[in-house]
Amino acid sequence: MTYRIAVLPGDGIGVEVVPQALRVLEKIGQKYGFSFEFTEALIGGAAIDATGHPLPAETLALCQNSDAVFLGAIGGPKWDSLPVHLRPEGAALLPLRKHLGLYANIRPCRTFSALIDASTLKREVIEGTELLVMRELTGGLYFGEKKRETMENGERAIDTLVYTTEEVERIVRLAFEAARKRRGEVCSVDKANVLESSRLWRETTNRIAADYPDVTLTHMYVDNCAMQLVRYPKQFDVIVTENMFGDILTDQASMLSGSLGMLPSASIGGQVALYEPAHGSAPDIAGQKKANPLATILSAAMMLEYSFNQVEAAREIEKAVDTVLNKGYRTGDIMEAEKTLVNTEEMTDRVLEEL
Amino acid sequence: MTYRIAVLPGDGIGVEVVPQALRVLEKIGQKYGFSFEFTEALIGGAAIDATGHPLPAETLALCQNSDAVFLGAIGGPKWDSLPVHLRPEGAALLPLRKHLGLYANIRPCRTFSALIDASTLKREVIEGTELLVMRELTGGLYFGEKKRETMENGERAIDTLVYTTEEVERIVRLAFEAARKRRGEVCSVDKANVLESSRLWRETTNRIAADYPDVTLTHMYVDNCAMQLVRYPKQFDVIVTENMFGDILTDQASMLSGSLGMLPSASIGGQVALYEPAHGSAPDIAGQKKANPLATILSAAMMLEYSFNQVEAAREIEKAVDTVLNKGYRTGDIMEAEKTLVNTEEMTDRVLEEL
Ligand SMILES: CC(C)[C@H](C(=O)O)[C@@H](O)C(=O)O
Ligand SMILES: CC(C)[C@H](C(=O)O)[C@@H](O)C(=O)O
Repeated sequence: MTYRIAVLPGDGIGVEVVPQALRVLEKIGQKYGFSFEFTEALIGGAAIDATGHPLPAETLALCQNSDAVFLGAIGGPKWDSLPVHLRPEGAALLPLRKHLGLYANIRPCRTFSALIDASTLKREVIEGTELLVMRELTGGLYFGEKKRETMENGERAIDTLVYTTEEVERIVRLAFEAARKRRGEVCSVDKANVLESSRLWRETTNRIAADYPDVTLTHMYVDNCAMQLVRYPKQFDVIVTENMFGDILTDQASMLSGSLGMLPSASIGGQVALYEPAHGSAPDIAGQKKANPLATILSAAMMLEYSFNQVEAAREIEKAVDTVLNKGYRTGDIMEAEKTLVNTEEMTDRVLEEL
Repeated sequence: MTYRIAVLPGDGIGVEVVPQALRVLEKIGQKYGFSFEFTEALIGGAAIDATGHPLPAETLALCQNSDAVFLGAIGGPKWDSLPVHLRPEGAALLPLRKHLGLYANIRPCRTFSALIDASTLKREVIEGTELLVMRELTGGLYFGEKKRETMENGERAIDTLVYTTEEVERIVRLAFEAARKRRGEVCSVDKANVLESSRLWRETTNRIAADYPDVTLTHMYVDNCAMQLVRYPKQFDVIVTENMFGDILTDQASMLSGSLGMLPSASIGGQVALYEPAHGSAPDIAGQKKANPLATILSAAMMLEYSFNQVEAAREIEKAVDTVLNKGYRTGDIMEAEKTLVNTEEMTDRVLEEL
């Protein structure tokens, strides 16, 4: 079995962490009897510099013809002053999601017992937290019509938040399916006391729930959810929500585990899924061999599970990461007193040793 | 000097905490030589039960003809199944804001040294946090056009996020003015990498900044802000943001101080301002004399400061609250070992003793 992977290191620390995760994939493949064909392509600022556009046509074509896409990170100060339609995030990430039909972003958010004290939240609040946010990724304010109008005293800017029954249905079904394999609880987050799209979201979710009598469904307003994630995060199993609310809540939830450097993500829904660490390009530490490769390595594990159903191999990578942390190895972002500081490559070496 | 106050206790614990705050206002008025004329009116579920509508015309008229509006809380399970256009929050709170022109919601968020351990965040993370969120309150997704359309396979729901230059300008100016009286730092929160309205917001903010050379302006994406409020809240002085982002971030920020029961709010902008505790009607503890009156008492202090420029009187109330906490008095929501549990009225008695 050979899996063809489109590899898009991108910008900043993306180019440092992606190759490390590929080493882990190679090794685990040898052990479990599958292999990879990695094809690299340009995206983001790197693609702008080389081709003038952050998502070159060849890159998109490669993604569409691969078994999965493995992304590092996109963007950096160098490209921040470009006009919006050329800026790496908006002009590469969003169209990539749309073209590949990646309507569901999955962010598991767990605490690592070795890192529990790295969180700003108290140990007893986060210990045992094990939640998953399922964010709708190709609808809502991100892709609705936008415009600017000139008025007498200035301008008027308009964004449109649109959802269809179908768009809600497919993501909510995924959330129920995910909950079935977990604690069986879905919390649907909306703002139904204000938004029409949230009312459609809520009605649709209630209807779909009838097909999953074994799963418990609750609804929560987004403002309350932002509060509950700080107050008592253990109450959540699967959270499902629309695109913008999900953008905010996933980043907030990432703080539960102490470091963004630990969190993987998967974007699924189309023919080809995309995997990337939840952290960004971290320009401040790029090029210094300091970056934490674990989020990217854990994203590789998600790829094995979600795209290739290699569940055992995925679990082994996750266990290796836990073990390495328990043995006290730390990159700078998660360093604490009396632990062993390692660089990006050394951290990966430690993971490889456990496989 | 006599201030005419429209008093709207509303629902749930609103009817318990509002009268307590009025006692504090009476007493502080005696001391500083001013008095109040309190006129009560119905709002929310209580108004539905009595008149069929959550915001009766007489209530609105009273508010418009008063010097300030003092609100308790609105809503409860009894009215949750009503059609949207009658539900207390949407049909009372939002029109009230719009009619009174309350375009700026101000939520100071500080930690109380006596309560610092009640927060789920670590002491060293929140100690000394002193931030203020300035939320735009009459624009954005809340008041843009909404509609539902029938499609082949279901429906399509649409909300519209609209901002004009003028709307951004007036709230941002308030934020700069507020920062001048504080640490001189404004953080404007938007999603300019995705939203057209955010790009107008950012351009306008940058332009206004030129009038406030003594204030430092930074911009932050809303997803990052949700993360930074957990990671390092002390970095913030004044946060200014649009309506929906503000709704989410204020509730999240409220968790820094450990209990929603401590947080006041002011909504200003029009002729008459509105003051209310940040907590809701708390139906679970309503009618049990357990509610924490301090958020409402602190809202009364904000009224004295913002509407009547009685700054000294406001500071004295705030100091009295601090003292009472330092002496160990606690309502149930903030109770800890070895403190003295008091009920709503007793807590107010303790505050009165300090004035
Ligand atoms: C870069 C930005 C457009 C993007 C988003 O908002 O979706 C990012 O924040 C993310 O969550 O992947
Ligand atoms: C009740 C609801 C409509 C309201 C809002 O979203 O503005 C509330 O959450 C608030 O923040 O005052």
